[in-house]
Formats: sequence, C-alpha cells, structure tokens
Amino acid sequence: MFEFITVRELYELYINDRDQLDGIEYVELQGWIRTNRNSGKVGFLALNDGTYFKNVQVVYLDEIIDNYEETSHISTGSAVKVTGKLKLTPDGKQPFEIEATHIVVEGTCDEDFPLQKKRHSFEYMREIPHLRPRANTFYATFRLRSVLSMAIHEFFQNQGFVYVHTPIITSNDGEGAGEMFRATTIDNTEFDKDFFGKEAYLTVTGQLHVEAFALTYRDVYTFGPAFRAENSNTSRHASEFWMIEPEIAFADLEDDMDLIEDMVKYCIDYVLDNAPEEMKFFESMIDKDCINRIKAVRDSDFKRMTYTEAIDYLLKADVKFENKVEWGMDLNSEHERYICEKIVGGPVFLTDYPKEIKAFYMRLNDDGKTVAACDLLVPGIGELVGGSQREERYDVLEKIMDEKGMAKEGLQWYMDLRRFGGCKHAGFGLGFDRFLMYLTGMQNIRDVEPFPRTPRNLKF
Amino acid sequence: MFEFITVRELYELYINDRDQLDGIEYVELQGWIRTNRNSGKVGFLALNDGTYFKNVQVVYLDEIIDNYEETSHISTGSAVKVTGKLKLTPDGKQPFEIEATHIVVEGTCDEDFPLQKKRHSFEYMREIPHLRPRANTFYATFRLRSVLSMAIHEFFQNQGFVYVHTPIITSNDGEGAGEMFRATTIDNTEFDKDFFGKEAYLTVTGQLHVEAFALTYRDVYTFGPAFRAENSNTSRHASEFWMIEPEIAFADLEDDMDLIEDMVKYCIDYVLDNAPEEMKFFESMIDKDCINRIKAVRDSDFKRMTYTEAIDYLLKADVKFENKVEWGMDLNSEHERYICEKIVGGPVFLTDYPKEIKAFYMRLNDDGKTVAACDLLVPGIGELVGGSQREERYDVLEKIMDEKGMAKEGLQWYMDLRRFGGCKHAGFGLGFDRFLMYLTGMQNIRDVEPFPRTPRNLKF
Repeated sequence: MFEFITVRELYELYINDRDQLDGIEYVELQGWIRTNRNSGKVGFLALNDGTYFKNVQVVYLDEIIDNYEETSHISTGSAVKVTGKLKLTPDGKQPFEIEATHIVVEGTCDEDFPLQKKRHSFEYMREIPHLRPRANTFYATFRLRSVLSMAIHEFFQNQGFVYVHTPIITSNDGEGAGEMFRATTIDNTEFDKDFFGKEAYLTVTGQLHVEAFALTYRDVYTFGPAFRAENSNTSRHASEFWMIEPEIAFADLEDDMDLIEDMVKYCIDYVLDNAPEEMKFFESMIDKDCINRIKAVRDSDFKRMTYTEAIDYLLKADVKFENKVEWGMDLNSEHERYICEKIVGGPVFLTDYPKEIKAFYMRLNDDGKTVAACDLLVPGIGELVGGSQREERYDVLEKIMDEKGMAKEGLQWYMDLRRFGGCKHAGFGLGFDRFLMYLTGMQNIRDVEPFPRTPRNLKF
Repeated sequence: MFEFITVRELYELYINDRDQLDGIEYVELQGWIRTNRNSGKVGFLALNDGTYFKNVQVVYLDEIIDNYEETSHISTGSAVKVTGKLKLTPDGKQPFEIEATHIVVEGTCDEDFPLQKKRHSFEYMREIPHLRPRANTFYATFRLRSVLSMAIHEFFQNQGFVYVHTPIITSNDGEGAGEMFRATTIDNTEFDKDFFGKEAYLTVTGQLHVEAFALTYRDVYTFGPAFRAENSNTSRHASEFWMIEPEIAFADLEDDMDLIEDMVKYCIDYVLDNAPEEMKFFESMIDKDCINRIKAVRDSDFKRMTYTEAIDYLLKADVKFENKVEWGMDLNSEHERYICEKIVGGPVFLTDYPKEIKAFYMRLNDDGKTVAACDLLVPGIGELVGGSQREERYDVLEKIMDEKGMAKEGLQWYMDLRRFGGCKHAGFGLGFDRFLMYLTGMQNIRDVEPFPRTPRNLKF
C-alpha cells in the first residue's frame, strides 16, 4: 500500500500519533532535492516538499531501485517523486527516513542554479527573489510571514472586528505624511485628462478611510499594502510595505493601549505555537536571543509613561546622547532605547506627545500642548507601534488643521464624520514587515518582503 | 450591577444561553441611533452598535430618565450611551428590550445627515462612501465582505497553504492583460529618472510571482488588490479590486478543479454559518433566491465538460444566440449561461479551451490546439473562477511566447522557474468582489467595495 503524504504530515504524526506512524509502511513523497550524496552502492537525498521546515532523508540503494546511476546524478534543486518504505530510525539524526523503491525525476535543475550548496550573502539573494525562498533563511521567513498574517486576522476576527479593504488608490494626498507615488495613465500634468480626471496617489495610510467604518461597526481593522516614495535607503524603509490599522469606537487611549498589548502578545504566542521549527531556526542562525526576547515581552506588563516623564528621565540620564534632549523634540532611537532598556527594562508605552510633532488627527489633551498619542517601545529596537485617540471635536480638529496649514476641501468628508454621530475613538498602526523583523531578528526589510521595492530597485 | 455589553453579545446569549441572559439585570450599551420616536411620556430608540445586524430597542420613560425632553429630540445618526434594565419581551417583535435609566448623547448628528429615514438610490449612496455603511444594505455587505475574507484565509491556512504578499508595484507589464496604471513620481517619460529607474506598473495579477513560491512551498495563495486601467463602465468592472490566486505544485488541472470546488463550497458554508442575519437580509431585500441558489451550489457535484463538447451543445441548441457559435470563439455570457443552466442545470467546469483565446502560461494539451484551462460556470452569472495548469516545459512555453509575439527579457526569471526544478503545477484566480456579488445578489461592483474606483470616479 502506497500512501501519498507530505513531510509535515510525517513529522506531525511523529510528534502527535506515533501509533499511526508505525502503521504506515510505504509512502509517496514529492518535493525538491536540497542535497544528494552517495558513495558506492548507497546514496542519500535530502528532500524538502515545501510543507515543513525540515527535510526528510531518502536512502537509495543500487540493489533496490532500478535507476541508481540516474538518481546519483540528480542535481540540487530538482523536483522528484519518491516512493519508498518508511523506516523509523530512533538512533539516527532524523526520527525517520525513506528507503526508496522508486525515484522519478519530475523536473531537472540546470547547472547555473544559483543556490548550490555554498552560502550566499543576503545582498546576492536579493537579486534572485524568485529563487531565494528555497534557501533556509528565506524559506523560514516567508512561512513565518504567512503564519503572522493569520495571527493578525484571527486576533481581530475572534473579537468581532470587521476587516475593511481601504483603497490603495486615493485622492487624499497624505497631508504631509511623506512623498507619494501617483497612479496614472498619462505622462504629463493634464490631470483632468487622466484616468480619474484628477491626481491620484498610492495610499500611505488607510486610517482616515477606516475611521468611517469604525463609526459604523465599532471595531474594525485594515491589513493591506501601503506606499512611500521616499528616497531613503535604510534597512527599515521600503517603498511598498504592509500595514495593520485597527480603529475602535467608544474607546480612548487606554483602550487603545490595552488592544495593542493584547495583539502583540497574541501574535507572539501564535508564531511560537504555529512555527516552532522556523523560530528555532531564527534562534540558532539569525538572532540567538529572539525567542527569549519575545517570550519576555509576552510575559511582561507593558508600562505606561508620559513623554514629559520620559524627557525628565533623559535629562537626568548619566549618558551622553548624540542628540540633545529638550521638551518638544522628537525622540530618537537612542532615547527610546534608553527609556525602554535602562529605565523600564521592558516594553513601555510613551504617551501624550507635544502636538507639534504629531499628526493633525490626534486628540488634543486638556493642557492644550500635548495630544493623546502613544508609541509602544520594545527592548532591542525602540518603537514598534504608534497609536492615538482621534480628535472627535469638529471645532478643535478644524483649528489644528488651520494651525498646521492644511487644505481642508479634500478632507471635508473626514471632518464631517465628527458632525454625524461622532464619538470617542482611537486606533493604531503596525508596520507588518517591521513586526516580522522584530520577531525573527532579521535586520533588513528587504529580506522579509517577497519582492522588496526600494529606490531604483524593482525586480520583476 | 451595570454590565457593559454589545448588541451581538445580547443576541448570542439569547440564542445560545438563555439562563445567563436571564441573570443580567442592568446593562450599558453604546451605539448609534437608527430611529427615535415618542409620544407623550414614552419614547423608543432603535440602537445599533455596529456589532450585529439587528438593532436593539431602548424604551425611555419620562418618569424614569432625567433628560426625557433632550432624549426625545436625539436625531437619527447620533452616538449615545444608554444604561438600563434588560427586559425579555417574549410577546414582542424583538426578544428583549432595554428600559433606559440613563441616556447620554456622546455625539450629535447635524440636520444635513444624508441618511435620514427615507430610502436613497444606490447611485446616490456612491457619493457618500464614508456614510453609506450605516445604511442596511451596505452595513450587511461590508460585514459579509469581512466574513468572506476570513473564510478564504481559513480555507487555505487550514490546509497548510502559505499566504504570499505578491507585489503591487511591478515591472512586469502584464503581457497584454489589459491597460495598466503606472506608479510614478515624475510627470514625463524620462523613466530612467523615475523612482525605480524604469517604468513601474500596478499589478494586474500576482500569479506569475506566486508561481515562484509554489515551486518552493507546494501550496500557496495570494489575497490582495489588483488593478485595471480599462475605460469600461460596466457593473462588473472596477479599476481596483481584490483577487485570490492560489497556486499548487505537483498538481494538474483535475487537482485544480477539486480545489476550486472545495473552496467555493467552504465559503458558502462559512457565510451561512457566520453571517446568517446578513444573508437573511439579502434574501429578503436584494435577491430572494440567493440563499437557495448558493445552497444548491454547495450541495451539487460540479460537472466537467470540455470546451469542444460545449460548442457541440451550442451548435445543436434550439436557441437563437446574439453571437454566432463556432469552434475557436470566446464564449459569451449567453453561451455560458445556456450550458450551465439549460444543459447541465448546475455548476460546471468548462475545460480545454483553444490556445488562441487563452493566456501564454497555460499548458498545451497533446492535441496541440487546446490548453489545460478551466472556467467554473455557475447558474445565474456564468463564469466565477478561471484556472489552468501551467506550462512547465521550457521549450513549449518559449514557443508559445514567440507565437504570441511576446517580449521575453522581462520574463526570463519566470521562464527560468522551468529550468530549476520545475514541476507540474496549476492555479486559479477568483475575483473577490464578484464572488461577494454572487453570494449576496448585489448587482454592481461599486456597491460591494468600500471605496470603489472606476473611470473618472475617485472619491476620497
């Protein structure tokens, strides 16, 4: 009896149901060859079928298979079908192996295959985004990306949040949130003749749009792509990235911070439970501290401290910062990490920032100087999430927009949400790619996106 | 004892746990007023809090609340907080109501609120995408959109599919798949000076990119936005829409069709289970046949018929078609519906279409004339899903690309997937918005997208 099975199914049976595994005699597997070595009359294939992080070892013997010579020359990267006997190997490195009875090459791999045995730099790998998922680091990263995506959806949907597909193309010019791409079908400035009859941009945030839905459904979230046409070549900036933007009505900044804390902890548990092999790989090969670091975050109470208190700590600090500290400044990474790592020793929300350094839609506090914003700082990287309570008072919102010199016509619909049953509401933005970097210890955003887009770099 | 609770929680307790509901004395609710009517010393608010399709009735009495006069003037659309006594009303229209003890207006609603009691046309509603979710039809539609999204993710993730964020901005010009938007930061044709140093487009499909991941992970899917800059003003075309594109390795057209059938049935069950109130609304207000129609699809075996057989049926048909039938033609909706509704009487896959009318990447059949493609036709609308086995033979792919006069440089990476461990693989594309239209009976794609984008129409 031959049973078609995946490598994941074999490992899961091994972990959860040894009896059923024992009952399996012959199996059929399909996958790609990671390595092939042989001497004399015996050879070994490391087969990966894409379903599981680990390979399965296939032993092939000249005396059993009828194409030993051909098999011994199968090159790395080739696609094969293998049938064989499942053998438990309690004394081996792997818990089981397949003793092949039949091996068929489904697709060969040419000699110029770039992923031969030797290691390549991440820079080199970025040149071959169509092939790098087959290398361990990327193989682990992109499955984790999928697992983390599902964690996000489950977290919000389990609590009844409504997922909203906010638009990618927008007439909203981002109000100074940075350079934007235009979406166009013309190559001049006659925008009245362009596809939409006016200038159209690729969105930098879905927040303004999703607020309209929060004021209908109470609890909503977005999860989709966003864009920045900034000419910055750092390891943390990409021109295209994915964002999660929840928005909750009848909620204030405290509720917002509770939600952020719950979400971060849920996602940490989820990836540890659902991608244990991948996380072990990151711990052993990328960042030896990554599992401990995120478990510590999961097990801590997130502290809360005002921006003003943080400035006091920084002014008193016995440390020479590169950037001079004064109230009203935007905090740099060095300041954020000092507060988080030295003062708090764990995750901390900084709150109530000066209004001048924050966005127009954040709610003005009673002091008239600060707004109800929060940034979540975590040890190791600093800011992970930014949120705020939104200004629900029409007149206050209007005044701040005037102070910031903003054009209001294009945002009248947004302001109107305050006239038509507006209420206290809040939300936050989580950069999905950066969260993935944080969980894995991967250092460059180009290495956690399937096909990264950065200035002068657009591969396929 | 006041207990903060949502309308959903109340209805779910009513359905699932009457004892616990009986134990609740006083509750606090927050939400928006759908209607407010009163006479003399008693008034009634229909309160909707966004968590559930139905409203809850709040009764307010002059002798109990201290702001009866103010409450009696609360306008439709206003945001309020209500505390009151939960009363089961077994003889009433609703199973329970709230007898208010305290009502606070959190946000008033100005007189020019466009959603007063009277009905508005869908056309009118498209002018106010930020407010229309509060009208029943859109309120039901956009929650169903969220529920259906989760159905898709659960269906694929439960089977170990890896979710891939294929890029939105691409250098791949779609190879004739239709007009595309460019993403740009310049307003001329000096593309070497543009952001990416070359022409960049908004994707029309993630398929080519996701194939690279299927040849790593075996089973993968995309779920994200796609774009067409076509100047077509039909009820089924939008310039921005969401697509689901699964891709499976070591799989042929039969496997592909099995997957499509499973997915469609899973999603139907999921929305019936998870959005019963919304589906009842669509049945009563939009399309009286919608629940029966999708249940029939769920309960049928999807038939399979070749394109050539279908042409034979059409040639023999005792019907006058607008478009003349001959082998080699692209089928029109009238033909698809005839086959599906008159010949088969249920869902049917048409397979093996002439290569001339299908895309370059579809696998050439041994007859040299047809390709291993399938379209799923369903009663009522015709084509719902299109899929194919992909051409895995480098030389055959190259020959077809030459026949179709395609430029190969930009697709060398894609062709190379066939040289580096290529294998039999297949996939399909499901237009998410059209699937939502099919399930609900909604007739215009503009009414199932939160902020629809069509030629010369870009609202916010």
